[in-house]
Amino acid sequence: MALFHVRMDVDIPRDLDPAVREETITRERAYSQELQRQGKWAHLWRIVGQYSNISIFDVDSADELHEILWNLPLFPYMTVEVMPLTKHGSSIR
Amino acid sequence: MALFHVRMDVDIPRDLDPAVREETITRERAYSQELQRQGKWAHLWRIVGQYSNISIFDVDSADELHEILWNLPLFPYMTVEVMPLTKHGSSIR
Amino acid sequence: MALFHVRMDVDIPRDLDPAVREETITRERAYSQELQRQGKWAHLWRIVGQYSNISIFDVDSADELHEILWNLPLFPYMTVEVMPLTKHGSSIR
Amino acid sequence: MALFHVRMDVDIPRDLDPAVREETITRERAYSQELQRQGKWAHLWRIVGQYSNISIFDVDSADELHEILWNLPLFPYMTVEVMPLTKHGSSIR
Amino acid sequence: MALFHVRMDVDIPRDLDPAVREETITRERAYSQELQRQGKWAHLWRIVGQYSNISIFDVDSADELHEILWNLPLFPYMTVEVMPLTKHGSSIR
Amino acid sequence: MALFHVRMDVDIPRDLDPAVREETITRERAYSQELQRQGKWAHLWRIVGQYSNISIFDVDSADELHEILWNLPLFPYMTVEVMPLTKHGSSIR
Amino acid sequence: MALFHVRMDVDIPRDLDPAVREETITRERAYSQELQRQGKWAHLWRIVGQYSNISIFDVDSADELHEILWNLPLFPYMTVEVMPLTKHGSSIR
Amino acid sequence: MALFHVRMDVDIPRDLDPAVREETITRERAYSQELQRQGKWAHLWRIVGQYSNISIFDVDSADELHEILWNLPLFPYMTVEVMPLTKHGSSIR
Amino acid sequence: MALFHVRMDVDIPRDLDPAVREETITRERAYSQELQRQGKWAHLWRIVGQYSNISIFDVDSADELHEILWNLPLFPYMTVEVMPLTKHGSSIR
Amino acid sequence: MALFHVRMDVDIPRDLDPAVREETITRERAYSQELQRQGKWAHLWRIVGQYSNISIFDVDSADELHEILWNLPLFPYMTVEVMPLTKHGSSIR
Repeated sequence: MALFHVRMDVDIPRDLDPAVREETITRERAYSQELQRQGKWAHLWRIVGQYSNISIFDVDSADELHEILWNLPLFPYMTVEVMPLTKHGSSIR
Repeated sequence: MALFHVRMDVDIPRDLDPAVREETITRERAYSQELQRQGKWAHLWRIVGQYSNISIFDVDSADELHEILWNLPLFPYMTVEVMPLTKHGSSIR
Repeated sequence: MALFHVRMDVDIPRDLDPAVREETITRERAYSQELQRQGKWAHLWRIVGQYSNISIFDVDSADELHEILWNLPLFPYMTVEVMPLTKHGSSIR
Repeated sequence: MALFHVRMDVDIPRDLDPAVREETITRERAYSQELQRQGKWAHLWRIVGQYSNISIFDVDSADELHEILWNLPLFPYMTVEVMPLTKHGSSIR
Repeated sequence: MALFHVRMDVDIPRDLDPAVREETITRERAYSQELQRQGKWAHLWRIVGQYSNISIFDVDSADELHEILWNLPLFPYMTVEVMPLTKHGSSIR
Repeated sequence: MALFHVRMDVDIPRDLDPAVREETITRERAYSQELQRQGKWAHLWRIVGQYSNISIFDVDSADELHEILWNLPLFPYMTVEVMPLTKHGSSIR
Repeated sequence: MALFHVRMDVDIPRDLDPAVREETITRERAYSQELQRQGKWAHLWRIVGQYSNISIFDVDSADELHEILWNLPLFPYMTVEVMPLTKHGSSIR
Repeated sequence: MALFHVRMDVDIPRDLDPAVREETITRERAYSQELQRQGKWAHLWRIVGQYSNISIFDVDSADELHEILWNLPLFPYMTVEVMPLTKHGSSIR
Repeated sequence: MALFHVRMDVDIPRDLDPAVREETITRERAYSQELQRQGKWAHLWRIVGQYSNISIFDVDSADELHEILWNLPLFPYMTVEVMPLTKHGSSIR
Repeated sequence: MALFHVRMDVDIPRDLDPAVREETITRERAYSQELQRQGKWAHLWRIVGQYSNISIFDVDSADELHEILWNLPLFPYMTVEVMPLTKHGSSIR
């Protein structure tokens, strides 16, 4: 398994059609929740005061992570930063 | 409860006495593991290729977090960044 | 209680409808003043020469702060930075 | 009166004589508390997880602020950032 | 008196109505020259190769400076940086 | 397999014992060449005018990459940046 | 021969005509694959989670590289960074 | 004549011999005041809260400015930034 | 004479009328070549892979340089950085 | 031929033996002048107010440039930035 730290900053253009906006956000939520249920999107937190999240992905490979991120409904409006993680020597898990 | 995202970058000076170095690292590990066992240091990951970690703290307050970080045995050799987190609307947890 | 330092930089798009602009600024003021009266928005200062403010929030939790910031009428036009504070050892308060 | 936002980041050199270190920190505290009592150092907060503070000064002039900062016992080991503030149009104070 | 160093970078949107543009620049010039005559806008220099200026303001207070800057006709199209100055110990003035 | 882009910037302290320096560089070379022979350190280029390299690693996992980097003889004197790669849709390989 | 490390970040404007968009991407792919077949575009990798690539070019000269990059169908929508490479002393190739 | 905006940030090493330190600062003051009397160092202000100054030089040429700066007694301990200025179209001087 | 290092980064808006675009680029070329013939625009190089140039100007004064740059037909679409140069002590010219 | 823009910032450690310092600077000058005479170090300018230079190299290849830079006597005390150049379409040379 491969562990990744991902930060997503969302910036939806103000002139996006409101119906498209709503539909995209709804699809994003369903997409995210399905991946959470599969255990691939292991953690998802909101950064206080920002339209941004910190996520931990637990996937088979970086290739799988890329597929997941590239297909996020909000991907065209996101800035995404990816950082590979590994087990810490002091972790008790 | 209050959730915080913390990044710690460690830079131990090269001229630190090796015995002090070892003793400090040993204390750091014990300190960290005790907090992990208490559930306050909720997650601890190593960033690949860096003497750095990403940690999630789940504490009573920012005041408690400050006490914990300030007393890290390696604190004098660390750069620490703290970011408050909150529940994400799409999280299934 | 939890104390936060927040900087808000406002950038209202030039092509926003003037009526919407005025109405939003009016709502922002009322929203801010209500929170000031409740003691949650403890301090609010203008940065000289900038459409920006420095604010101190004194709230129950980071979750409450996020709710407050997310619902600012000007939030879609703001860049927001949040920094948790704690009591300083030399403070006489 | 003149209002200033000041951030101080402290970095005491590791090889400073421990007695000098203690004496300097003690003087810093006394110096800061005297100015707090006079109302000139209006607020002093610790930034969580950092050897840093956020301060609000309420002084007669920028000249007076400079004198105060320049004479901080820890000034040689500090990075200081100063930002002038003014009353915010929405402030109820 | 209070002395401030101000840098203004101007970026007038390309689609601003040319008449509005001209009228705004004309008002800016008159506004600036009136303040120069009063001695409040003590120095005004162009940065070579940039639509930017370096200015020194000599005003009663930071509050007065904020009023001056906020009412610049070009303010909505400017990035403004303010830095308080004080007398230098080696200055012969 | 997992592909990573790594940049290493080397800064050996000037006061390192010359014999230790030479021995470390010699070990680094052997270590690197063994990994190149195994196919794990897939590419290694020098950046022109810098004591830096760009490397491509082709390893089993991010965990393996971390082990490799952490054990580089020059690791204590390096700044390391890691970026996960994946196949590009237009690549003919 | 001359070796270059190139990073390309693509940002196609949202309001580009969809047919133009598709046609441009198709031409980009053909253009890239022809250069890969010639051995000039030696490597092409996708950065995980980004509309970006890391490329290695193996060309006759910087002049040739400039011609290649300048004529990329997506060039008007790209940010491009070029870094010259040379053989590394520890490389076994 | 040529006008330049110069910012100097001073960082005297802590381990500099105190007598050398004093002597250097004394020479710096004399050197600066002589140039001020000649009208070449036209303005000299302290930045509030910093061991830094903002200076305006009014010299024959950039070559002369370089000679002046290069021979500052504190030059080895300074970071210097130079920006050429020219007359502003709205200046009344 | 005064020597300046100038970097120009060009970013012509996508929605500029194509005829205006062509006419502006043609005027820019004529303007640049006339100044090159006069010896004022001493060197002009393209940065590989960028719509940017590095130029050396050899002019009477910074004032003259500003006039030249301010009147570049592409100036409204450029980011310009200016750095004064002087003779290097090791130069054989 | 290959053209490169190089910026070198020099920072000689204060505790370097003065004789070694002088000898290194002398060798640097001879080394530079020999390359200037060969036409490889085509231009060398001092940046005003900085211990830095801007150089243009006209060499056979990036490999040759790397050899030249790597063997600069002051290389261990330099920060070096390299940018490949090519002929500009508007250049009259």
